[in-house]
Amino acid sequence: MNWDQDITASLSIKYPIIQAPMLGITTPEMVSAIADEGGLGSLPVGGLSPETSLQLIRKVKAKTTAPFAVNLFTHDIPAIDLNDADIMQDLLEDLSEKYYLGYERQDVATFKFHSYKEQVELLIGEKIPVVSFTFGIPDETSIAQLKATGVLLIGTATSVKEAVLLEQQGIDMITAQGIEAGGHRGTFLEDGPLPQVGTLPLVAQICKAVKIPVIAAGGIYDGSTIKAAAALGAAGVQIGSAFLASDESLAIPAFKQALQHISETDTVLTRSFSGRWARGIRNKFMEAVEEAGIRIPVYPVQNSLTTSLRANAQKKDNINFTNLWAGQSAAKAKQEPAAAIFRNLLMQIGASDQ
Amino acid sequence: MNWDQDITASLSIKYPIIQAPMLGITTPEMVSAIADEGGLGSLPVGGLSPETSLQLIRKVKAKTTAPFAVNLFTHDIPAIDLNDADIMQDLLEDLSEKYYLGYERQDVATFKFHSYKEQVELLIGEKIPVVSFTFGIPDETSIAQLKATGVLLIGTATSVKEAVLLEQQGIDMITAQGIEAGGHRGTFLEDGPLPQVGTLPLVAQICKAVKIPVIAAGGIYDGSTIKAAAALGAAGVQIGSAFLASDESLAIPAFKQALQHISETDTVLTRSFSGRWARGIRNKFMEAVEEAGIRIPVYPVQNSLTTSLRANAQKKDNINFTNLWAGQSAAKAKQEPAAAIFRNLLMQIGASDQ
Repeated sequence: MNWDQDITASLSIKYPIIQAPMLGITTPEMVSAIADEGGLGSLPVGGLSPETSLQLIRKVKAKTTAPFAVNLFTHDIPAIDLNDADIMQDLLEDLSEKYYLGYERQDVATFKFHSYKEQVELLIGEKIPVVSFTFGIPDETSIAQLKATGVLLIGTATSVKEAVLLEQQGIDMITAQGIEAGGHRGTFLEDGPLPQVGTLPLVAQICKAVKIPVIAAGGIYDGSTIKAAAALGAAGVQIGSAFLASDESLAIPAFKQALQHISETDTVLTRSFSGRWARGIRNKFMEAVEEAGIRIPVYPVQNSLTTSLRANAQKKDNINFTNLWAGQSAAKAKQEPAAAIFRNLLMQIGASDQ
Repeated sequence: MNWDQDITASLSIKYPIIQAPMLGITTPEMVSAIADEGGLGSLPVGGLSPETSLQLIRKVKAKTTAPFAVNLFTHDIPAIDLNDADIMQDLLEDLSEKYYLGYERQDVATFKFHSYKEQVELLIGEKIPVVSFTFGIPDETSIAQLKATGVLLIGTATSVKEAVLLEQQGIDMITAQGIEAGGHRGTFLEDGPLPQVGTLPLVAQICKAVKIPVIAAGGIYDGSTIKAAAALGAAGVQIGSAFLASDESLAIPAFKQALQHISETDTVLTRSFSGRWARGIRNKFMEAVEEAGIRIPVYPVQNSLTTSLRANAQKKDNINFTNLWAGQSAAKAKQEPAAAIFRNLLMQIGASDQ
């Protein structure tokens, strides 16, 4: 394997393979398993309270002494449109009644969202070596604080323009997220339609536009796709869907089962669950929101509105009313320990005995 | 360069690089230039009359003795919905009046479409060694006729399922067309939403599902993307957009110029021009059809309806009312001879002195 640049030294890892931070899926156990294998485990704490974030970080630390990354959501907190939220809650109530989902109407005016800014200090305090982020660029103060203590920053770009901006802001590495990726789009420049660029051309073009290392994300799941990323000029890969059905994943049993039967064409982009574009397996909830034709509140308002409904569905192992984030290479994701999945990837690229 | 399988011998070419058949763009001169350089030139004759097809084939033959491929559209001829066509013509007349496009209302009931079946005999008569096709699978009789005379067949797939079907029908090679590709989607299984799978996961997954050679298409434009295709398991690549602005391209000057200023995010999928999904640079015509919110007649009805309007726009070098098919790696397509573009690709993969 010839990578364009060596990022293993600066990340203190053995292999330039990053386990994608998947909020709601990734556990501290998954992160520590990958860290112990020599990859970069990523703990997602986007939107969580400082207290919960700290608990999760401590849980990883209790399981491994290897370094790992923590992932933030660096969006601005939006104003809430109470009218849009009201109309959406009518729909959620209707669905709840029809399908016994136990939705209780919420007082949206009292919603309070956590900013990544509340998490910066604790990350520094906990000596987290790598902070990755998505949905934006941290403000200059946060960047300066993190960099002053030697934290390495990895931003997410879905277009060449976003990648160039991240480099200009002093970010150390870029995750180039192709349209194939499961979960939320990291898009933060909203000056036109959602960028929908495939991993292959996106990585190739970002690698030519910036000097900092680029990590390829989206559709990567095996030896051939990892090697392709290296050929495109990437310095590493980020892999999410391959770990969706792992023993350490929070995915409900019916979701893990569904992954065994989908094909590469079964995921779509939707704003229905969170207010932000994300890729997942098409299901009844997406269709119901689309059919209703109502305006979907912005992220994270819609995300909060649908939280209890999704949680209730998950408790019932019901895949029709919770988000099934998955990428275009998620089919047949293996149901085994994350470490075994990781080692299999290493074997496929001939790196297992390094 | 290590390709998974060697297709150069069976295609009688030197390099497994195929110039994409781009109807309305590709000239006999482009085909012969690529053929002379040792690549596979592809002459598009989809939907053309046998007479025009023969003329174009003879033109290529007058310029080169090297083998080349001919590309067919293997769709069924649909019934015409006169009402939909009528409503669409109202819009075309409105646009024409507003923007001086000289549209003349057509008698749709007299439309006659050519089937690829009318072209099979002449391809055999002309001893065309390679026939590629898109929009479907030729009927069994046509496949048998072509194969009986030693013609090599290349089909187009946009999903694993389509690829498997092509292999089952005895097709010799598969072009795996990722969502990044410019121009028409080759999709022919219409049992759900349009497959929108990226080249990277699509090629990787098709290569694992079939035994016949796979040619990667969509987003490929330089050495790094060609090498990535090889890493994915492809036996060759098909490249279109890189030749869009070549001297031998029929693209109007304003289109060639526009290519110098777009980015990887500026193309979108549309049915507005032809009735079939295709990727091109967003322009006024697309937007006008979308805004009208009317039903778009199926392919090739809509294609015929918009032909004169597009031709008139092209005469005026007006990019607002003609299709600007282009892929996600079309930006800065070089304005030089196709042979120079081809040789540059060879240099980038270290193959120029083979």
